[in-house]
Amino acid sequence: MKRVELCFSPAEFALYEKDFELVVVIDVLRATSAMCTALHHGVERIRPVASVEEAREWQAKGYVAAAERNGEVVEGFDLGNSPIAYIERAEELKGQTVVITTTNGTKAIDIARNKRTVVIGALNNLDALSAWLIDRHEDVLILGSGWKDKFNLEDTICGGAIADALIESGRFRADEDSTVAGKFIYRSARDNMFAFLKASSHRRRLRRLNLNADVKYCLTPNNLTTIPILQDGFLVKLPVHEGTPA
Amino acid sequence: MKRVELCFSPAEFALYEKDFELVVVIDVLRATSAMCTALHHGVERIRPVASVEEAREWQAKGYVAAAERNGEVVEGFDLGNSPIAYIERAEELKGQTVVITTTNGTKAIDIARNKRTVVIGALNNLDALSAWLIDRHEDVLILGSGWKDKFNLEDTICGGAIADALIESGRFRADEDSTVAGKFIYRSARDNMFAFLKASSHRRRLRRLNLNADVKYCLTPNNLTTIPILQDGFLVKLPVHEGTPA
Repeated sequence: MKRVELCFSPAEFALYEKDFELVVVIDVLRATSAMCTALHHGVERIRPVASVEEAREWQAKGYVAAAERNGEVVEGFDLGNSPIAYIERAEELKGQTVVITTTNGTKAIDIARNKRTVVIGALNNLDALSAWLIDRHEDVLILGSGWKDKFNLEDTICGGAIADALIESGRFRADEDSTVAGKFIYRSARDNMFAFLKASSHRRRLRRLNLNADVKYCLTPNNLTTIPILQDGFLVKLPVHEGTPA
Repeated sequence: MKRVELCFSPAEFALYEKDFELVVVIDVLRATSAMCTALHHGVERIRPVASVEEAREWQAKGYVAAAERNGEVVEGFDLGNSPIAYIERAEELKGQTVVITTTNGTKAIDIARNKRTVVIGALNNLDALSAWLIDRHEDVLILGSGWKDKFNLEDTICGGAIADALIESGRFRADEDSTVAGKFIYRSARDNMFAFLKASSHRRRLRRLNLNADVKYCLTPNNLTTIPILQDGFLVKLPVHEGTPA
């Protein structure tokens, strides 16, 4: 039996990371949903960076750069973390490298980057990722990006969904209370995630910014099968032969 | 509308404490259950201290002292945080001051001690405490003691139960995702808490120590009506005229 554990935010990573070499990073609203979507729709690779300054440096070198803070595209950039924007601009972005920094998601990736394997999860690639993890059969730490280091509902639902699938496979056990909690929150939410997240602080934030279409997209499970994996600092599409049937 | 928020562990207190002057500290297994029980059964006041050394100093001065670490009574003490022990020794402890240090609970009290009002919650005093908080109608931060800074299931269930009661009163709103999560975890667990907590890491720890009777006691809602409140460094029974009908 392998272990699956859930860490609610980057601030708690140090309490959980010991013994894990495989980390799944989740930021449902919207960074990791956008990353899965961008790679799925033709972006060649994504360079996640922790700061806006770093994104500007890459931009100055001629790279396509995306930056989001507090739900909005940062001044001087014309892309943020809207998955729908990556679909709309798929033609133009095909084969490109995109550099991206976001409020929470890229920080979580940054904190996990020294682990042997870092993959990107979202509700959008839920079944594909869960199947790959079950098949891989290795201890899994699921890291939610949270909201400015606080617990966050949508990442916990997604992390709980992955944990639930792994536990249900019979090949993983949950040692931590946070994992059990995530599983039950997912089960409370799954039949109507949009309504469940009415109370989510971040969904309120995005609604104020007229991003309901993005939120609906991010809360749609399994609309793609791409699993981004970190290789030498870049997120790339997990090779098909390592992936699960689409 | 007042706010009710849930903070899962002392490590996150700094992210949540701003704007709150009333904090409820919870350590269901077993510190705060034992504190409610001790005061309910005749202990005059309780001095929570953060370290074993401090408890020893008070003990040397002639005070009754209790110390627990990792579920066990610390060597040199004959009391820990077993609520049942406080009931069994009620005669002898009547009117006494008891000094106590525990793995998580007294640390959480210590971190909250500069707030204007610190009260102690457990499943044992759930309805009495919730009624008092609703009546008081002030912003409430509920602080779970966690397990060595990690999220913990039983404190979250209890905190979620209090939050649920406050929100249901129509006089409180929940701003934080953690509060919504706590509410749903409580609702998933309430019909069979003992079974729900099978997976709880701390319950496993206590079972190994043959403390199932204590666990059952701690998971019994509303078997007492005492609300401990921190006054000048000592926990005392909230005066009856400020409390709710027993």
